[in-house]
Amino acid sequence: MADTTTKTAGQAIDERAVNAIRALAIDATQQAGSGHPGMPMGAAPMGYVLYTRVMKHNPRNPSWWNRDRYVQSAGHGSMLQYSLLHLTGYDLSMEELKNYRQWGSKTPGHPEVNHTPGVETTTGPLGQGISTAVGMALAEAHLAARYNRPDFEVIGHHTYVIASDGDIMEGVSSEASSFAGHHRLGKLIVLYDDNHISIDGPTSITFSEDVLARYQAYGWHTQRVDDGNNLKALEQAIQAARQEDGRPSLIAVRTTIGFGAPHLGGTSKVHGSPLGEKEARAAKENLGIDWPAFSVPEDVLTHYRRALPLGAEAEAAWQQLYRSYRKAHPEAAAELERVMAKKLKAESLAHLPVFSAGEGGIATRKASQQVLNSLAADLPELLGGSADLAASNYTDLEGASAISRDNYGGRIVHFGIREHGMAAIANGMALHGGVRPFVATFMIFADYLRPALRLAALMKQPVIYLLTHDSIGLGGDGPTHQPVAHLMSLRAIPNVTVIRPADGNETAQAWAVALRHRNGPVVLALSRQALPHLDVPADSVARGGYLLAKEAGDPQVILLGTGSEVQLCLAAKEVLEQEGIGARVVSMPSFELFEEQEEEYRETVLPRSIRSRVAVEAGASLGWQKYTGLDGATVTLDHFGASGAGDVVMDKFGFNVETVVAAAKRIIG
Amino acid sequence: MADTTTKTAGQAIDERAVNAIRALAIDATQQAGSGHPGMPMGAAPMGYVLYTRVMKHNPRNPSWWNRDRYVQSAGHGSMLQYSLLHLTGYDLSMEELKNYRQWGSKTPGHPEVNHTPGVETTTGPLGQGISTAVGMALAEAHLAARYNRPDFEVIGHHTYVIASDGDIMEGVSSEASSFAGHHRLGKLIVLYDDNHISIDGPTSITFSEDVLARYQAYGWHTQRVDDGNNLKALEQAIQAARQEDGRPSLIAVRTTIGFGAPHLGGTSKVHGSPLGEKEARAAKENLGIDWPAFSVPEDVLTHYRRALPLGAEAEAAWQQLYRSYRKAHPEAAAELERVMAKKLKAESLAHLPVFSAGEGGIATRKASQQVLNSLAADLPELLGGSADLAASNYTDLEGASAISRDNYGGRIVHFGIREHGMAAIANGMALHGGVRPFVATFMIFADYLRPALRLAALMKQPVIYLLTHDSIGLGGDGPTHQPVAHLMSLRAIPNVTVIRPADGNETAQAWAVALRHRNGPVVLALSRQALPHLDVPADSVARGGYLLAKEAGDPQVILLGTGSEVQLCLAAKEVLEQEGIGARVVSMPSFELFEEQEEEYRETVLPRSIRSRVAVEAGASLGWQKYTGLDGATVTLDHFGASGAGDVVMDKFGFNVETVVAAAKRIIG
Repeated sequence: MADTTTKTAGQAIDERAVNAIRALAIDATQQAGSGHPGMPMGAAPMGYVLYTRVMKHNPRNPSWWNRDRYVQSAGHGSMLQYSLLHLTGYDLSMEELKNYRQWGSKTPGHPEVNHTPGVETTTGPLGQGISTAVGMALAEAHLAARYNRPDFEVIGHHTYVIASDGDIMEGVSSEASSFAGHHRLGKLIVLYDDNHISIDGPTSITFSEDVLARYQAYGWHTQRVDDGNNLKALEQAIQAARQEDGRPSLIAVRTTIGFGAPHLGGTSKVHGSPLGEKEARAAKENLGIDWPAFSVPEDVLTHYRRALPLGAEAEAAWQQLYRSYRKAHPEAAAELERVMAKKLKAESLAHLPVFSAGEGGIATRKASQQVLNSLAADLPELLGGSADLAASNYTDLEGASAISRDNYGGRIVHFGIREHGMAAIANGMALHGGVRPFVATFMIFADYLRPALRLAALMKQPVIYLLTHDSIGLGGDGPTHQPVAHLMSLRAIPNVTVIRPADGNETAQAWAVALRHRNGPVVLALSRQALPHLDVPADSVARGGYLLAKEAGDPQVILLGTGSEVQLCLAAKEVLEQEGIGARVVSMPSFELFEEQEEEYRETVLPRSIRSRVAVEAGASLGWQKYTGLDGATVTLDHFGASGAGDVVMDKFGFNVETVVAAAKRIIG
Repeated sequence: MADTTTKTAGQAIDERAVNAIRALAIDATQQAGSGHPGMPMGAAPMGYVLYTRVMKHNPRNPSWWNRDRYVQSAGHGSMLQYSLLHLTGYDLSMEELKNYRQWGSKTPGHPEVNHTPGVETTTGPLGQGISTAVGMALAEAHLAARYNRPDFEVIGHHTYVIASDGDIMEGVSSEASSFAGHHRLGKLIVLYDDNHISIDGPTSITFSEDVLARYQAYGWHTQRVDDGNNLKALEQAIQAARQEDGRPSLIAVRTTIGFGAPHLGGTSKVHGSPLGEKEARAAKENLGIDWPAFSVPEDVLTHYRRALPLGAEAEAAWQQLYRSYRKAHPEAAAELERVMAKKLKAESLAHLPVFSAGEGGIATRKASQQVLNSLAADLPELLGGSADLAASNYTDLEGASAISRDNYGGRIVHFGIREHGMAAIANGMALHGGVRPFVATFMIFADYLRPALRLAALMKQPVIYLLTHDSIGLGGDGPTHQPVAHLMSLRAIPNVTVIRPADGNETAQAWAVALRHRNGPVVLALSRQALPHLDVPADSVARGGYLLAKEAGDPQVILLGTGSEVQLCLAAKEVLEQEGIGARVVSMPSFELFEEQEEEYRETVLPRSIRSRVAVEAGASLGWQKYTGLDGATVTLDHFGASGAGDVVMDKFGFNVETVVAAAKRIIG
């Protein structure tokens, strides 16, 4: 508020600096005609304290390894972060703030990593930011344990979060917070913007739990700051949280949404709409903001830009430490630099297991385990685990220990029965860098983690998903556990590469593709049941689809299959060719990789002229018509599964040679 | 354990009765060669106390309205429930228990509603059962408030849950439990099977939170029973929970997984695998089970079957009460009977709004609001709300009040920022009966609630989903909020009917379809942006796809569109026909409904002979090839969106007349 009391010069500049954020939030949302001014206006003091008094960051080098991470989980209040980035000297101009929420700007409605310098993760879908931050803190703890040496704390930073009521209500944050408490991630500090308002009104209409008590139950250190405008109290609470390094910290900060807006402040009306011209003017008057729109008084800017020399000094000191570390520990440094640069070790893919065709067979989930373990020694950055299904997903690394509060250097992560939290934590690990996370569960539970998987795709983060029990072939657990829509639904998400290998050899190649892939998550869909080994030419999986078995004579029909259904295609081919029908078998482990091939290659596999095509996959038909068109057929599953022995269920639902043969004859005839 | 102390006759029969459950769980999993014996062996005393001493249920009439509901959230322990159903006299024979997990049996791996008499909801995916139970308790409280009259408590029952560690770890249960605590659903009683074991080992490897403290923070009444075999303590705790009718109750019951198995009991090895012959024998000996496999001693069966006369009496008493109620309150009774029978009121669809073509336009989300409000007075069973986006989803019922702890008779539900919990709660409401739930959020957040939506589909529950902001057309909120894969991913789920209306009139028809649809969830995909009103013939939406604008002359190309993109098809048709190209526009609001039509009808809309087809939808292309085949084209979106004004984003990504026209010409030419 415009003050009438006497202030010190420091207090005065602090207040103007905080109000500069509020002013920019008001201006940008007014200009855009949309957006969320209330959160930035209420949380401005928190952001100010973090960026100017607490955080170790260098605005000139947002990718400095050892910076503190800031995650604005309340992504809708993006103008808070954009204002702070501009004010402290990141490469984000006033022009960009004027173009808030406009096409082509660096200031989208919600913060996007790799789009705006200084943004660490993409937020907006509530609950994700805080959960992603848990992964960042986990990665930090792991790398510190792995690479720091006596007198050389080359990894050592905090992860700060501002979270909203929505973040706290979402189940994913409950999962991740329980995980963080269990693992005692003491360098994770969450400021909870406790403003008592959500979109539909006061939070009291549906949210009356005791949040601090809940977080205490998770094993967190908790504090309360009663006045969100009290900078000193904020700073003290954050310092206390830093000192409590054995537990993550939650600080509930009582704020007023839209602070300063005389009529709308403290109400849900200021959550998701601009103030309107009149209220904007009144708010500025009320706050003592007497400078023009989209400007920053020089004293305020000077005050903020002290972040530049401070950041440069902090990084320089670290660089000096790092140079000494590299001399003292050249091997550790070389490895650390390699993993931070996301480079594979050259020899890492040289020892992939090979499975001899004809020699029985194993489930692709088991093949995956062999592959994973063949890679683990060469790639210490490979780190992950399962959501309490390790013995079914086959994710354990032989001889490795689990990450725990007493052993952050472990490599197996026990995520617990928290699929969504797991995926969000993996995003944070990948974003942090230095680790290559893999996660696992049954494919059916991909639905539980889908929002975080989508964010991995949007952020182009290379998280590896091992989704086993990939069809009705899993058997007795029944339809609650049998995926039907999952394969196609995952293929529909942009930037997700889905690979469903047909045997151990395709599985090995799929892992190689996954490790080389840097621009998004890769899903390996793996069978519960054993599958015979196939003769798979090198680099076939990387092509997405390939000619697995050439037709005898002229091709009259193409049988396309994935995973466990490829063997059905091979068997059907034999039957058809006994009847003189030339049948080609195409193994199609990945739609996405196949689409990336040149048309010439695709034409050799699926000649346009051959319209008689049968797709065979124990999943939804929708999407297969991309390859089978209006003249082909699908042997697929457009209803839910059933409990029963896996082979019986498969057969009853038409996944047998007869059905494939009949479909082929029907479309030829 | 085999006892050496002296017992009363009552204690002896209790122990044999509890062990009869354990024996059947051992036998069935041994016979199946798979399944989960550990949970039923540990939790048998809880189940025994519930089914024989606590619950009001009539095994001869599992659909008696006023029965207590039992939800086994730990669905993997299905043999606990199957044993109890068999033992207390439900229509589930010993033969069915012998066929556990086999094709065609009534005893699938996880309990399935409408498949096995006495099963109230399908469980297995963890966290769902307990959250669904919250919805049952909410429906009960609502109906009681709505229909009970002084001296006539015709609705009044409890909802009991047995939940596992996994249920408690999953985020969805956190959301639903917070909601239940807020709403003080005192008739919800959860027994938490606190056995310290999950699949990967002791829960201590990843789960060390204080569960009771967490539930207290949610506003629940909590208790602890230290010995899960102490029947008296269990019964007392449940009675205390019943007396505490102002808060939901959680009772943490310390049990031993696989209780009685001398070597594997208390370990994760007994969680998900049969004991093996030797250990099974040893366990039976240890427990004093001296009767043959798949049998029940006569005294034990007699003891259990007392449930039959008790249940018959309980229902008879209620029937008598109900007959008096019907006489005293015939109108209330008639309405209650109608809503319990899931019948629409005849006139309810008579007042749907009509929007005149050419008179401007509105967003389909707003049209939906008008439709909803036109229905609300006639259909008091219509009950629901939004996950904190009511003012954006337009779900508020005019003049209605919100459900709250002080007003269970309200009709608006404030679900909070808990999409997943919302969907699971809605499942419980639908399963309970007497209410017709609708839920709402942005379409992007359908990912958050997908596991519960899938269960609604699997259980064929008619929950209505209003998913607004259905494309990149939402604009400035950016790619975090712009659905791309969502439409197609929802279409891929069996039993889900997705309808994306193109204007207000299609929206009104879509609502009519949704209300008449009884066999699964219906999703209405609604626009944020205004759309012009169209001339929509009656019952067009029910057909799924229809000829909206006939070609001039011969049809050379078919333009298929949904929702906001239908207008692009109409505009493109005009341009094409100015150039002499006959273009037909097919509005295709629902793939599923179209596929249900007879081939003859489908052929009139999409003649097989016309292969030049362009699909236009601001979503993933995958799946559209079902209609466009190998010779058609799609104007769709196979990458993420971007922040910017909605019309700009649409245009930049090719959703404009030029692109549609060009695509049409390309495939014709």
